[in-house]
Amino acid sequence: MILGRVVGRLWASRQAAGLAGRKLLLIRPETASGAEATRLIVAVDGLSAGPGDRVVVAHGSRVRDLTVGAEVADKDIVVGIVDGHDLGTP
Amino acid sequence: MILGRVVGRLWASRQAAGLAGRKLLLIRPETASGAEATRLIVAVDGLSAGPGDRVVVAHGSRVRDLTVGAEVADKDIVVGIVDGHDLGTP
Amino acid sequence: MILGRVVGRLWASRQAAGLAGRKLLLIRPETASGAEATRLIVAVDGLSAGPGDRVVVAHGSRVRDLTVGAEVADKDIVVGIVDGHDLGTP
Amino acid sequence: MILGRVVGRLWASRQAAGLAGRKLLLIRPETASGAEATRLIVAVDGLSAGPGDRVVVAHGSRVRDLTVGAEVADKDIVVGIVDGHDLGTP
Amino acid sequence: MILGRVVGRLWASRQAAGLAGRKLLLIRPETASGAEATRLIVAVDGLSAGPGDRVVVAHGSRVRDLTVGAEVADKDIVVGIVDGHDLGTP
Repeated sequence: MILGRVVGRLWASRQAAGLAGRKLLLIRPETASGAEATRLIVAVDGLSAGPGDRVVVAHGSRVRDLTVGAEVADKDIVVGIVDGHDLGTP
Repeated sequence: MILGRVVGRLWASRQAAGLAGRKLLLIRPETASGAEATRLIVAVDGLSAGPGDRVVVAHGSRVRDLTVGAEVADKDIVVGIVDGHDLGTP
Repeated sequence: MILGRVVGRLWASRQAAGLAGRKLLLIRPETASGAEATRLIVAVDGLSAGPGDRVVVAHGSRVRDLTVGAEVADKDIVVGIVDGHDLGTP
Repeated sequence: MILGRVVGRLWASRQAAGLAGRKLLLIRPETASGAEATRLIVAVDGLSAGPGDRVVVAHGSRVRDLTVGAEVADKDIVVGIVDGHDLGTP
Repeated sequence: MILGRVVGRLWASRQAAGLAGRKLLLIRPETASGAEATRLIVAVDGLSAGPGDRVVVAHGSRVRDLTVGAEVADKDIVVGIVDGHDLGTP
């Protein structure tokens, strides 16, 4: 999975039927240096995430089936909104 | 999924039977800085997208089945033409 | 598969049902130069790995089914904790 | 899919049974700047492509089934030999 | 598929049951410039490859089923040991 931050929402009037009514989020992956990557991911939201949220994005057909439904024409899904992290004591 | 801009169309006279009659679009992914990446993606179009359009490209077997058909020999599919985006108020 | 080091653990109170009770590890891939990459991976742990551990992460639906269970909403799974490596005599 | 140029052919006497008799092509992806990437892809050829050809490479189990056969131990397949492209009038 | 060179072997005493008895190889992908990439791949070996060997690594569930067996908890598999290549006359 990928850890990233929600930077916005996309609107597409012409889209596959399998995306109808789905919220599409634009997400920037985080890097280990604390900065965000310049590459972008678009994922379907099933958790009411919004701009600024740190999220975990999973990729997979069955992930989609288990979360937003088998009829969705995408398999990049927001599966968690991160509250915090523990860097442990390695 | 990937957000990108359509930069052209490809023609292949020798191709897999499963691509016959399909429109192949050449797409440059967008980056968070507003620039476009130099890497290229080729995707099957099911939405009549054209050069200059901002599109969302999904990757997956079932995505293909739900959109352009199970007999298509590709699983990178244009699933949305983007009208705009909302960067929210993080 | 990817070789990386566990750098922490993530907490998400709002998450897909298929991640409930699963430990999410934040992992930095290793590079051939000995340094760690700046990109990050999030994987489900099925081996009680912890910060500082060198791990192998596999990606796949069936990998998940064979390890942490088919109901888990992710397919990046920690499948090994590395004890050492042998660089051979090429 | 990926757009690239065939730069050679690989020979492997010890290989998986599912690759026996298959032609393995070494391919360099193209970039938007016209240059070729330094990373390399190896794909199974089902179209009699040869060095210098510009090809489209698809990735997927069903792509393989539809093209070179379900028994092939690879899912990166050359699915088109490109004749030209149209950059449109954006 | 990816072309790379075997740089070593990994040992993991704590690992998924589906990796028991499997040889895990550490592999550096080759680039078009002749140098090796710094990123690393870990793959299951089904061909008795060893350090210094140039190998082809395929990725896929069915690739695994056809080569090392459906019960293996990984889908990156060494499917060929390269003897040579022909750069053709483009």
